[in-house]
Amino acid sequence: MSLQQTMLEAIEVELKNQVARLDQPHTKKFHEMLTYHMGWTGEGAGPTATGKRIRPLVTLLSLASVDSKNKFDNSVAPNWLHAVSAASAIELIHNFSLVHDDIQDNSELRRGRKTVWAKWGQPMAINAGDALFVIAYQSIFDLSKHYPAEIVLQAGKILSEVCLKLTQGQYLDMAYENRHDLSMEDYWHVIGGKTASLLSACTHIGSLLGYAKHEIVEAYRLFGYHLGLAFQVQDDVLGIWGDETVTGKSAASDLVEGKNSLPVLFALEKNGAFAQRWKQGAIRQEEVHDMARLLEQEGAKEYAEKVSAEQTQKAMQYAEQAQPHGEAGQTLLGLANMLLKRNQ
Amino acid sequence: MSLQQTMLEAIEVELKNQVARLDQPHTKKFHEMLTYHMGWTGEGAGPTATGKRIRPLVTLLSLASVDSKNKFDNSVAPNWLHAVSAASAIELIHNFSLVHDDIQDNSELRRGRKTVWAKWGQPMAINAGDALFVIAYQSIFDLSKHYPAEIVLQAGKILSEVCLKLTQGQYLDMAYENRHDLSMEDYWHVIGGKTASLLSACTHIGSLLGYAKHEIVEAYRLFGYHLGLAFQVQDDVLGIWGDETVTGKSAASDLVEGKNSLPVLFALEKNGAFAQRWKQGAIRQEEVHDMARLLEQEGAKEYAEKVSAEQTQKAMQYAEQAQPHGEAGQTLLGLANMLLKRNQ
Repeated sequence: MSLQQTMLEAIEVELKNQVARLDQPHTKKFHEMLTYHMGWTGEGAGPTATGKRIRPLVTLLSLASVDSKNKFDNSVAPNWLHAVSAASAIELIHNFSLVHDDIQDNSELRRGRKTVWAKWGQPMAINAGDALFVIAYQSIFDLSKHYPAEIVLQAGKILSEVCLKLTQGQYLDMAYENRHDLSMEDYWHVIGGKTASLLSACTHIGSLLGYAKHEIVEAYRLFGYHLGLAFQVQDDVLGIWGDETVTGKSAASDLVEGKNSLPVLFALEKNGAFAQRWKQGAIRQEEVHDMARLLEQEGAKEYAEKVSAEQTQKAMQYAEQAQPHGEAGQTLLGLANMLLKRNQ
Repeated sequence: MSLQQTMLEAIEVELKNQVARLDQPHTKKFHEMLTYHMGWTGEGAGPTATGKRIRPLVTLLSLASVDSKNKFDNSVAPNWLHAVSAASAIELIHNFSLVHDDIQDNSELRRGRKTVWAKWGQPMAINAGDALFVIAYQSIFDLSKHYPAEIVLQAGKILSEVCLKLTQGQYLDMAYENRHDLSMEDYWHVIGGKTASLLSACTHIGSLLGYAKHEIVEAYRLFGYHLGLAFQVQDDVLGIWGDETVTGKSAASDLVEGKNSLPVLFALEKNGAFAQRWKQGAIRQEEVHDMARLLEQEGAKEYAEKVSAEQTQKAMQYAEQAQPHGEAGQTLLGLANMLLKRNQ
């Protein structure tokens, strides 16, 4: 079995154990809301429902790929199995935010299944998200079985900083909805607080738990951060010009939904024909093809692809500094590559 | 200035500093949602809007009242000022739960002011509650400026256990709504997860940070727990038979709202005339007086008062074991007394 497969199995076991804190006589149905959301139970349960567990995997691969010459203490050889609860914590944070996002966005479906609020109502879903949040902290505290308290505390602080950024990104995302006066600078504040910050927490906490030296931890952190930014910008491109058969989501749907993506903000700053139409209200499905072409003609696609390439390059520069080592290092870089080449 | 007053001022300063993490150029309005909820800004801001800050006060009084002979290390003389961030953490957890509760209960008013969701909508309010939650953890981690990492971690774990209990209590509260088949045992699961667990966290974390010996910490914890239970049961009595002019809330309103309070559950187990009427649906305002009298005739008031007295007695037994000392000890016991004698 590959290292990746072994890690994914360990992650799943750990997640189940963490969530089982609610598996008590009086709270069986509460527990079920969480196991349903995590993709383990209920209709449609299985691999497509769980998602890919990219974040916890990146966390463990970061830990396991720290080269021994880059550790601040050569005497320690951390075992990634000892850090599975930290990987689980990050995945639980991700899932807490999904449960609350779905309520906030009024989304009834996620990965083809009913969302928690659509199944059990909003009050229960708010509470289920809160429980995932608490368990994420309990999960990171469980590191203390194998790590000194100082390091556990550092990991907890990193996680909290990222969570605060998530709420800030979420606030901006909601506040910017239906606004047509946003600049590209505003864009970076939103996405810096979402995908990028959570992915940077994975490489940051992972390398910290791998006992990497300070400057190596910093390289891992920035690798994750720019990887997240590149991924997000690319997601914006795919949301307008992507191949539906590859991405699995309806291309150009971001235009219909009025999403303030980078290509759109680029065109709004340009204030050409696209911007004029955009400001007049929602794009209808039958206009989507022409609007996407207009956007491309105004240079928005090229611009976004350039930005994504720049961020990818930055990510790769930091990866070089981080010097991920061995099978874990190979797998980590392969995973980054896969994330960035989804459209090919 | 009394110790209590000094503490309350320090708590308020700390809370403001913690919440100011969101006071950044792009998130001013997000920050405003939190300062409004905390009672510092917006219409009706001021002492009645902030609430009494009982929980953080109990936390600091517990710390400061640990007798030197009861410390596990006599060489340390903890300064309560060093633990204000822990007191703030508990108050922030309490407020996170209020913001989410108000959405879940569809309550438009709290302390006579519009709730966060009523002012800014549910999606923003969910996110505002989430932010208070994160900041609570950042607040407890700030203890590491003055406390060893092991103790900070212990405090974080206690806080998390209590938060999980809060979500369980909240789940049961919602799940039990409109059910008429509950037993008194079910009742203890709900309230054990609400008022009581948060109050026990105050005395638990407080005495821990006061460097109390293990058995003394345990006594403080149980003092807070039973104090919380006694308070909650008494609140149930006041919600049906209380004097409106004293409690400030409409007496008997718990009957109209169909609340599964202890007196009601007692009567449901008895299955007499009250139970028959209760099962037929919502009590109307004009029936309230007669229903309250019927409930009293069936022995429900006497029973609840007996339970409250028993819990008060238990709380006081543990207080004796905890041996709170000095001005802080006097103030702590005085505060407990005040909480339990609201109706007199």
